Formats: sequence, C-alpha cells, structure tokens
Amino acid sequence: MTNRPLILISNDDGVQAQGIKVLTALMQGLGDVIVVAPDGPRSASACSISPLSTITIRLLMEEDGLKVYQCSGTPTDCVKLALDGLLTRKPDLVVSGINHGDNASVSVQYSGTVGAALEACMKQVPAIAFSLKTKSLQCDFSPYEEVIMQTARYVLEHGLPQDVLLNVNFPEVPVLKGTKVCRLSRGAWRKEMVEAGVNAYRLSGYFENLEPEADDTDYWALDHGFASITPIQLDMTAYRVMERLRGEILKG
Amino acid sequence: MTNRPLILISNDDGVQAQGIKVLTALMQGLGDVIVVAPDGPRSASACSISPLSTITIRLLMEEDGLKVYQCSGTPTDCVKLALDGLLTRKPDLVVSGINHGDNASVSVQYSGTVGAALEACMKQVPAIAFSLKTKSLQCDFSPYEEVIMQTARYVLEHGLPQDVLLNVNFPEVPVLKGTKVCRLSRGAWRKEMVEAGVNAYRLSGYFENLEPEADDTDYWALDHGFASITPIQLDMTAYRVMERLRGEILKG
Repeated sequence: MTNRPLILISNDDGVQAQGIKVLTALMQGLGDVIVVAPDGPRSASACSISPLSTITIRLLMEEDGLKVYQCSGTPTDCVKLALDGLLTRKPDLVVSGINHGDNASVSVQYSGTVGAALEACMKQVPAIAFSLKTKSLQCDFSPYEEVIMQTARYVLEHGLPQDVLLNVNFPEVPVLKGTKVCRLSRGAWRKEMVEAGVNAYRLSGYFENLEPEADDTDYWALDHGFASITPIQLDMTAYRVMERLRGEILKG
Repeated sequence: MTNRPLILISNDDGVQAQGIKVLTALMQGLGDVIVVAPDGPRSASACSISPLSTITIRLLMEEDGLKVYQCSGTPTDCVKLALDGLLTRKPDLVVSGINHGDNASVSVQYSGTVGAALEACMKQVPAIAFSLKTKSLQCDFSPYEEVIMQTARYVLEHGLPQDVLLNVNFPEVPVLKGTKVCRLSRGAWRKEMVEAGVNAYRLSGYFENLEPEADDTDYWALDHGFASITPIQLDMTAYRVMERLRGEILKG
C-alpha cells in the first residue's frame, strides 16, 4: 500500500513513442505510475473502441512504482481496460501523450490522445491530454516539462470540474513565451484525399485556422510561442439553439 | 444538371445494413442521393480516420439520382472522401444512419454515425445523425419515417446554425409518443471489460443514465417513448471554467 497518487498514462502514438516515455519519467516524480498504451501507432483514433475484437495486453515492465502494459486496442480501449480490469483502485489522474503532433482546434475530434482523456473524464477521473506541434518522432521535450509538471500538480491538488478535462498543446520552440488558457479555434482540414491508384486514396491535407486574427484561441497561442491550456467538456449539447429548434422543427 | 438537393448518406453499420437502405429510400424522395458507406460494420469508430491505410472505394450501384459506393475506411473517411474526392458539388445535406443501436448521452463520443455527421459539420454541410435504440439487425423503421422526413425537410429548407448538427434517436416502439428537443443526458458505460482468456478481454457492459429523473434529456425521451432531437456543437471548449483556471493554474 502507498499513499502516493496513482497516475494512469496512455497515448495514441504507441507505448514505444518518445513522448509517452518522457511523460512517464515526469509523472514518476509525482506518484505511482501505470502505463497502458497501444502496441503501435493509433493516430487519429478519436474515441473509437474495438467491440468486434479480442483485446490483448502484455506486461512489458514492472518495477517499484511503475508498471507498463502494451495493449492491442485503441487509446480508449486502453483506458477502459485499465479502469475496469487492471487497476485495483481508481487513479487520481489520467494523462495522455505527449502526442507527436498538435491536437488543437477541430483536431480534438480526431485525436486518440484526447480520446483517452475523454474516456477518463467520462469515468470521473481528472484527465489531461498533452500534445506537441511537431512532425518529428524525436524531439526535445525539455522546454515543456515545467508546464506539464505544474498542470499535473494543479490537477492532483484541486481536481477538475465535473465532466471537464484539460487539453494542453505546445509549440515547438526552444523557450515557451508563456502559457495561455484559451478556447478551441474554429478550423478545418483541407485537401485531405490524395489519389493513390484506381479507386484508391490516402489521407493528407493541411489545417486551416478559420479565425487567425482571434488572439484567444489555442491555435493563436501555438502560432505565437505559447503553450495552450483548453478546458474541454463532455457535454456537446448546443444549448443556445434548443429553444429555436423547439419552435421551428416541432411545429413541422 | 439538376436543381434537386444533393444528399450524402453514410453510416457505421456498413453499406449493407438495413438502416442505411431505409434512409436511402426515404432521402430519394427529397433529392439526388449519393451513399458512401463502410464495406462492413464500423460500430464505435467515433471520428477516427485511417492515416496509415490506403482507402479504397467501389461503385456498387448507379441509377438515375442514386449512386452507392462502399469504402474500406471509417465513416469519417467516407465523408471526407465524398466531400473531397467524389462529389463535384457540395451536398445540401449529410445524413448518417439509421444506426442499429442508440447514440444518446456519452455514446455520441464513441459513435461512428455521429462521427460522420461531425465531419460534415466541420466542412460547413448541414448534417443529421439518426439512430434507433434496438439490438436487432432487422427492424421495422416505419414508425420513424415521418420524423426523419420532417427533420430532413426542415434542415434542407432552413439549414442549421454554424458548427451545429442534429442528433436524432428513436425508441423501439410501434407508435412514437412524440418528439422532444432535448439535451444529452449525463451517463456512463459500466463493466465494460470481460475476460476472454489469459491477458485477453472483450468489450461488453451496460449503460447507466446518471440522471434518470431529469425529464429534459435524450435518454428520458427514449425511455418514455419519444424521439429525441439533440443539437450537438463542434466546439467542446468549457467556457464556464476558463476564468477560474486562468486564476488558479497560471499563478502556479
């Protein structure tokens, strides 16, 4: 038995990714750590789960205060399995990442990194998703360690509001200009399908920020050298349009 | 050339599912229809996409005002491919479903049916997800046809607010009591992992409505014989907690 916090870690780049190893080393400074992460890359798996498959796990490492499992499923499967099968007590914190590639704006909808954090949030466990805006598989994560530790310590101490998680993104810079709490930017991916033969396509494309002038968004923060912290809520109900719809649709 | 509306249809149960065939027949009454749907079941694929795969398509049927493609990707891949590869003009409406199984409460996070509609919404195309609370692969969809047509006609005529889609769920009843515009219920899936051998698991479980007494939720509507219409917004920012986080996290 221990009184140290229990911290569950997952990601969508797979258990061997550099980002999750850095995050694991950092979290060991704050508590006992269990890693349950996919056995390979699962980028853009969102909150998908694997109802048609058998999900297998393998214990890769066990030492004092650290267990590392790889799992054949998605990031969300990993968190479900940890919370409902592997752990004997509820974790105090779930962290996901550090993703290689940002998860700002609409990319939160596609992100397996955010998906793992959403799953924890649905189960009333405080959760943080960390992502770095990079295209590299090997990066220097040291500029972001202080914000990661500060955010994790804050959540361990204070918790988070019900049904809310934190989505943290970093720009790839040698020194952060600071940290901003900001909203998701409006944006969209463009030119996403590239022909790859007869009746065959590959995903590609670029992200377009639809409000580049707005200085209160996550994309603005990243574009200007700041870390962004965006609180994300589970409840996607568009309350502001409900009355109007009631008046218009239901009257036929 | 035609002046009829162009309606794109997808789902997550696959192109051969009964629900999408019923929806296709209904939508042919409103416009020209193109179906781009997965080649098999993709339940619980959320907004996942397939960045590591080649995505292939096959034209299954072409007749006046109707084209049907099957696609090797996820529901979201299907919508991306249609909007960015197959269609020569932007559709007037995207409809997804009719899903065999409800997509109310937190199930919107896992749903490929809703994922397809979210993708359309991100691309500024009005979208509706339709789902039936059933466990059957063969159902009588006739009790829901009137609400489906009424909702689709409304959206074709009026559009939807920016970055908002409609999530419509039906209870399995011979006669609907009516239709309610309602919010997502708070809820969670329980006991989701069943052991299936050494280090092997299968997804299972049951849904728990965390606020069964609240009469303004989608689950309440379904439990009481009503169709539910819930407006869902892309923007998941938890605005209500931003000020507090600014004050607390950033001061360290």
